[in-house]
Amino acid sequence: MTDIQIAQSVTPEHIKKIAAELSIPEDKLEYYGNDKAKIPLNIIDEAKLKKSNLILVTAITPTPAGEGKTTTCIGLGDALNYLKKKAVVVIREPSLGPVFGIKGGAAGGGRSQVIPMVDINLHFTGDFHAIEKANNLLSALIENNIQSKSRSLGIDPRTVIWKRCMDMNDRGLRNIVAALGGKAGGIPRETGFNITAASEIMAILCMASNLEDLKERCGNIYIGDTWEGKAVYAKDLNANGAMAVLLKDAIKPNLVQTLEGNPAIIHGGPFANIAQGTNSIIATKMGMTLCDYTVTEAGFGADLGAEKFMNIKCRAAGISPKTIVLVATIRALKYHGGKSLKEITQEDVEAVRKGLPNLERHISSLKSFGIPIVVSLNAFKTDTEAEMQVVADHCEKVGIPIALSYGWEKGGKGCTDLAEEVIKAANSCSDKFHPTYSLDDSVNTKIEKICQTIYGAEHVELSNIAISQLRKYESMGYGNLPICMAKTEKSFSDDEKRLGRPEHFDIHIREFEIATGAGFIIPIAGNILRMPGLPATPAAEKITIDENGIIEGLF
Amino acid sequence: MTDIQIAQSVTPEHIKKIAAELSIPEDKLEYYGNDKAKIPLNIIDEAKLKKSNLILVTAITPTPAGEGKTTTCIGLGDALNYLKKKAVVVIREPSLGPVFGIKGGAAGGGRSQVIPMVDINLHFTGDFHAIEKANNLLSALIENNIQSKSRSLGIDPRTVIWKRCMDMNDRGLRNIVAALGGKAGGIPRETGFNITAASEIMAILCMASNLEDLKERCGNIYIGDTWEGKAVYAKDLNANGAMAVLLKDAIKPNLVQTLEGNPAIIHGGPFANIAQGTNSIIATKMGMTLCDYTVTEAGFGADLGAEKFMNIKCRAAGISPKTIVLVATIRALKYHGGKSLKEITQEDVEAVRKGLPNLERHISSLKSFGIPIVVSLNAFKTDTEAEMQVVADHCEKVGIPIALSYGWEKGGKGCTDLAEEVIKAANSCSDKFHPTYSLDDSVNTKIEKICQTIYGAEHVELSNIAISQLRKYESMGYGNLPICMAKTEKSFSDDEKRLGRPEHFDIHIREFEIATGAGFIIPIAGNILRMPGLPATPAAEKITIDENGIIEGLF
Repeated sequence: MTDIQIAQSVTPEHIKKIAAELSIPEDKLEYYGNDKAKIPLNIIDEAKLKKSNLILVTAITPTPAGEGKTTTCIGLGDALNYLKKKAVVVIREPSLGPVFGIKGGAAGGGRSQVIPMVDINLHFTGDFHAIEKANNLLSALIENNIQSKSRSLGIDPRTVIWKRCMDMNDRGLRNIVAALGGKAGGIPRETGFNITAASEIMAILCMASNLEDLKERCGNIYIGDTWEGKAVYAKDLNANGAMAVLLKDAIKPNLVQTLEGNPAIIHGGPFANIAQGTNSIIATKMGMTLCDYTVTEAGFGADLGAEKFMNIKCRAAGISPKTIVLVATIRALKYHGGKSLKEITQEDVEAVRKGLPNLERHISSLKSFGIPIVVSLNAFKTDTEAEMQVVADHCEKVGIPIALSYGWEKGGKGCTDLAEEVIKAANSCSDKFHPTYSLDDSVNTKIEKICQTIYGAEHVELSNIAISQLRKYESMGYGNLPICMAKTEKSFSDDEKRLGRPEHFDIHIREFEIATGAGFIIPIAGNILRMPGLPATPAAEKITIDENGIIEGLF
Repeated sequence: MTDIQIAQSVTPEHIKKIAAELSIPEDKLEYYGNDKAKIPLNIIDEAKLKKSNLILVTAITPTPAGEGKTTTCIGLGDALNYLKKKAVVVIREPSLGPVFGIKGGAAGGGRSQVIPMVDINLHFTGDFHAIEKANNLLSALIENNIQSKSRSLGIDPRTVIWKRCMDMNDRGLRNIVAALGGKAGGIPRETGFNITAASEIMAILCMASNLEDLKERCGNIYIGDTWEGKAVYAKDLNANGAMAVLLKDAIKPNLVQTLEGNPAIIHGGPFANIAQGTNSIIATKMGMTLCDYTVTEAGFGADLGAEKFMNIKCRAAGISPKTIVLVATIRALKYHGGKSLKEITQEDVEAVRKGLPNLERHISSLKSFGIPIVVSLNAFKTDTEAEMQVVADHCEKVGIPIALSYGWEKGGKGCTDLAEEVIKAANSCSDKFHPTYSLDDSVNTKIEKICQTIYGAEHVELSNIAISQLRKYESMGYGNLPICMAKTEKSFSDDEKRLGRPEHFDIHIREFEIATGAGFIIPIAGNILRMPGLPATPAAEKITIDENGIIEGLF
């Protein structure tokens, strides 16, 4: 059975039943159909956060298909519930980019999925669309002010760094010249689109503590300079009120359920390679308010997702995970051991062994946070006993507990070993995480600490453009912001071809973006792009719907 | 009280109560909160359409603020219900362009509104967003195919006519050069964005009879040519299945209610100046299935909205209105009589008299359809008895019934005179409408007939570009499509400064667009643009929300 067939074979509980089990009053919910609802922000109770166990699920460097972090996250949530713990899964909303591109949906897989999976993977409750509109309203207001005779702020169009966004893998929008066509079209200028998952509005939504904070952050967005060199912010355009109106519902977390009828909160969806890579602070705090165990994930490998989860999100939110689950797969280890994507389904103990340095490096990077680690080996049918034993032996050697997980095949019951290891680890955690850098470090130092401590790089090199951009942002007083690296997810390095555990490499910062509303400095490493393209054969071509509404090819 | 204050002072009925009064089974509804629901298409019963009275509300040439067509439409629906007729209002969804631009919302006004008005004017049930995504997925697939080495269709990028779309007044996106930035960015080419309300996907959604038809229409979209000059369609890119998946919910009409708790169906939102200007065929047929009276509107003046309503929508759907309500206002007549927007609130009988030719021309144009006409004088507080008498005398002279309507001030009770005239007129209607042109006419003839019969123009002139575009579309076999004029709404002519009843003028067709999926040829007259810009002081600047969620400035 395909993921979509499994998802559609289960009749969801009415969402008010799921809410009732979380003690959310029925009349507080805003329903989107019978199986989705938004939860109001005033349910969050800061006093309860300290008692809750936050569990972060991250992964080794993934293959293009992903290693099943979301599946493990959902399976672990179900397993904790199966073991009579009160647990909720808190994950990100999927982007249409991957859905129509190469990766497909992001609602788990097999018996560990969140439902209604079709809705979740398409428009869901409209949060991405609202983010896009808020982003692009600001763009339209900028363009309009540049064009204005009577109310001009004197914006120098060459300095405008604010880009439009679209939730689509559209390489043609990456670099454009806009405002052509003569006087009525505006002042021509170079600009471009980011994918919505990489937009600052997405970042803001995921960093905001409430609607007022969101409105203020929107106002603080730096968009460019006047001809005299004075910085212009969104609030100077009176844009942030209307932006907040557009986001008034998107800021509320979405309640859905797993296939096993356990609660799941899905909210916000920044990618981890080009954005901060984790769901909203609001959603995580909501989970921690409602349950004893909150299982969440951060995108791609631990070098990207986990690093940002700690240094950006947890630091800002004042929370700390009790355990980090590091997902590995036999096939990814073989891939890092030098095998091609076609070969990784054949037994090859030696290739697994050769791939272990990737796992080892992630473990040593994660140890720097000082939080207990559990390795979860996400089982595939093609894995053999001998291959799995290699990984188990390695974990024993480095003193990290390991559990096999069968979330895809068996759902929560397939993840009870993992859940038990997680409970044990969380009980043993008495400290908060140690950040990789201090906010008081210089930007250069912050980037170096990430690259050295987490990636294992030697040096950081900045391009000439990057140097001048950084100098400017520091002179504007933004040197104390945290760092949100944009780097390929396919390697610890900035070269996607260097699999396994690369050594003796430098990180090359091509340019910087700044997100003064979200509060990040974004160094862009190597060739990573903030607007992806579609692959040679896009998934979109196989997706269709028949006259009875039956969808095919979505996964 | 402002519109938003009035709207928020009324507690909506649960939408299932509204549905129950229409005999829609509760379990057939798809809820979006407690006050919005989508109705499944299989409720439509073609057999019931003939018995239903379809009433079209249109208007004289409007001032920039609009003359209250939607308000009259809602007031008339409420009045018919008040008179114990089973009536439903079927209108378009608002676009964010005007909401953040100059005009504000499009959910009626005063005591004649549809609710929940904030939702309706913002994201509503996400239909516009879904349309945008389907449109832009096709764009991304085109760009990707042009870039493809292995699966190229050989598209000549210079011939691609398919544009992206965005629901925003953003002049900077009207004309762009896309796909810049070197090899990875694609093949640079000139292109642009339409506003979503003018996109072909919007047109398709409003013309489609069901999901299969919609999928087929999406496949039939002509996007450009190969280097060998062969036409390329969306189906050649395998795009239409995924587009239909994105539109699977957007195709279902939305049920809401008026302030008085009567049913309203809101679905689709093409503008009337740059698109076909009326809600979806599906929504209209839904209304006609459910009620004895279906009150609907077509955008801007009758020259645009009513003409397209008849010749495009009614012809395709096989339906015909029983009465046309022509909305006029004293202030618009004064405007056409030569007064400025600032002066039209002062009594000026002579200016009203001077503006009458505009009303007269609309009446004579509408008479060509052979359907009973009722003039509705939409009352404003500043109107005087003497001014209103001028209009009443004129209508008596030309033999057209007139009713004063006070929908804004009094809701349904303020429109009972109008409702009684409408009932009388509808009862007297025994014939179907006479179209302005035959589909077998040549494209030139069709355009001439519209311009002469409806606008009162003398000749039609085509630019050289338009001539060659038309030759091409005719040679492709599209000469038998109906015409969807793009023309300013501010004048019968293509010059927005020629108010009143211009005479001795020609219509200049600058270029053609073609919508082979929707099934239109779109002549673009004069300077009209399919992507509007924001005004000097955009409404967006005054819109905000406070920490309690109270929205200000939306209207």
